[in-house]
Amino acid sequence: MISRSDVEAARARIGSRVRTTPVFADGDRVLKLEQLQHTGSFKARGAFNRILAAAEKGGLPDAGVVAASGGNAGLAVAYAARELGVPAEVYVPETAPAVKVAGLRALGAAVVQVGREYAEAYDAATKRVADTGALFCHAYDQPEICAGQGTLALELEEQTGGVDTVLVAVGGGGLMAGIAAALEGRSRVIAVEPHGCASLNAALAAGEPVDVEVSGVAADSLGARRIGEIAFAVARRTEVTSLLVSDEDVIAARRDLWRRYHLVLEHGTAAAYAALLTGAYHPAPGERLAIICCGANTDPSDLTERGASTTTE
Amino acid sequence: MISRSDVEAARARIGSRVRTTPVFADGDRVLKLEQLQHTGSFKARGAFNRILAAAEKGGLPDAGVVAASGGNAGLAVAYAARELGVPAEVYVPETAPAVKVAGLRALGAAVVQVGREYAEAYDAATKRVADTGALFCHAYDQPEICAGQGTLALELEEQTGGVDTVLVAVGGGGLMAGIAAALEGRSRVIAVEPHGCASLNAALAAGEPVDVEVSGVAADSLGARRIGEIAFAVARRTEVTSLLVSDEDVIAARRDLWRRYHLVLEHGTAAAYAALLTGAYHPAPGERLAIICCGANTDPSDLTERGASTTTE
Repeated sequence: MISRSDVEAARARIGSRVRTTPVFADGDRVLKLEQLQHTGSFKARGAFNRILAAAEKGGLPDAGVVAASGGNAGLAVAYAARELGVPAEVYVPETAPAVKVAGLRALGAAVVQVGREYAEAYDAATKRVADTGALFCHAYDQPEICAGQGTLALELEEQTGGVDTVLVAVGGGGLMAGIAAALEGRSRVIAVEPHGCASLNAALAAGEPVDVEVSGVAADSLGARRIGEIAFAVARRTEVTSLLVSDEDVIAARRDLWRRYHLVLEHGTAAAYAALLTGAYHPAPGERLAIICCGANTDPSDLTERGASTTTE
Repeated sequence: MISRSDVEAARARIGSRVRTTPVFADGDRVLKLEQLQHTGSFKARGAFNRILAAAEKGGLPDAGVVAASGGNAGLAVAYAARELGVPAEVYVPETAPAVKVAGLRALGAAVVQVGREYAEAYDAATKRVADTGALFCHAYDQPEICAGQGTLALELEEQTGGVDTVLVAVGGGGLMAGIAAALEGRSRVIAVEPHGCASLNAALAAGEPVDVEVSGVAADSLGARRIGEIAFAVARRTEVTSLLVSDEDVIAARRDLWRRYHLVLEHGTAAAYAALLTGAYHPAPGERLAIICCGANTDPSDLTERGASTTTE
């Protein structure tokens, strides 16, 4: 479990190692442009906090840090480790695309390819940690990771003077947990998931984290099979609202963000905007609303079509 | 000729019809993200100011407004006219890509295709204005257009507390003129052009605006054959510095903006960043530098490559 004070401590610890990302107001809605963060997503915040917190507590192990992710979490741990001068090993399945492996290596990480599925790479990573004493950086379910991600919300609060409501996409829930903890009693948090990646929605319905099937356009960024324990606990404590959107809504939202604002986002991170665009979330008149745009590690080549304008207003 | 007071008047006139676009600080450099503006470039500012100023002076002609541009200026005039409830005719060559014609029509403009080259469309537009009394909106060389574009600089000043230096790409020079007039005596303005679109550089060398050949990757957004008279006069009065970059530098800069920040820009508008990236402009230690990112009407599909990471840090 984490609270605002954990997020405040994270922010002091991380300092200027992450970028202060801009906000953009269009009427009563504010977009937080976190895709401008180092390595293209919010994940750098948690990675720095996890590694720096361990260093404070007694130094980092010679074996360095270990992560299991071919996506944004892996890139962020590789980047943070390099910036802090710590060796990093990132475990991915043998089926990981060459482009992802190359990206991790370009950031200086040792990439270990194990098994056909993510779960096998994850198991190999945790075994490696047990064998070597390396510091494991989970993709979402560690207090330092969640608190680090939450620093985004403290920035947002300063930049806007506070908002009534925050719309955020949820995969494993690390970002949602950090934001909800940071803004507890201050802003309402609406967690948005595509039907195919509904780990939080299913957990709230079941009364506990449960495994879900994952599928759809957002699975590469939101496809956690089970919501994090921390995220679930924070969501219940702070009364986070869960909303679902369809894959079609997510695709339309990503396209609208390009046409309306010329912003490029991953499908998963466009889910929060999709909830607004479709009316799944309907703000009250004058409600101050923030939409978290939190990742852009995507191929933008499907955003323009022959014969169609790039601008829709 | 225009001065800061013209830009201040433009800002009061335009009000909230244009977006306040965000700034993003990375160390001592600030990026002004004007590609988030309506229709994807700064041009909406000048279009609103030109039309609203005419309306103030004695009402708008029944014939509405006319522009000659298949690019950002045409989109902006079409958008501003629609928002203000004024008919718009946009003249483009018969060779204009279907995507551009469709984009203009989607914004409600009547598109008139004349001739094989831009000059013929321009001539037809001015003839139409003479025949009907419509209000002509030049792409850059009218005081209200330049002053409107300059409102970007007043925003920038408020958002940053002022900078020492502004790097801006130059085509016909409307944006440069507006910025230089707004910040005269306050900030240094560095005008950046690719070798193939060097209208300002050639004019400063010749002591007057001269025709230049245009070519290269940035020609679609910066390819004015001759710098505007207003832009030339403001550049001389305010001692704007002219720098040239290569097409290769522009391509690399556009790619770097994507990899480092996940921002998509047109080639032309990446020229300002190219001057910094290549060292063509070398800021002093601690120099507060703003780089104007001013357009994103581009196809982003060449920004990712098979086998390469989308993130470079």
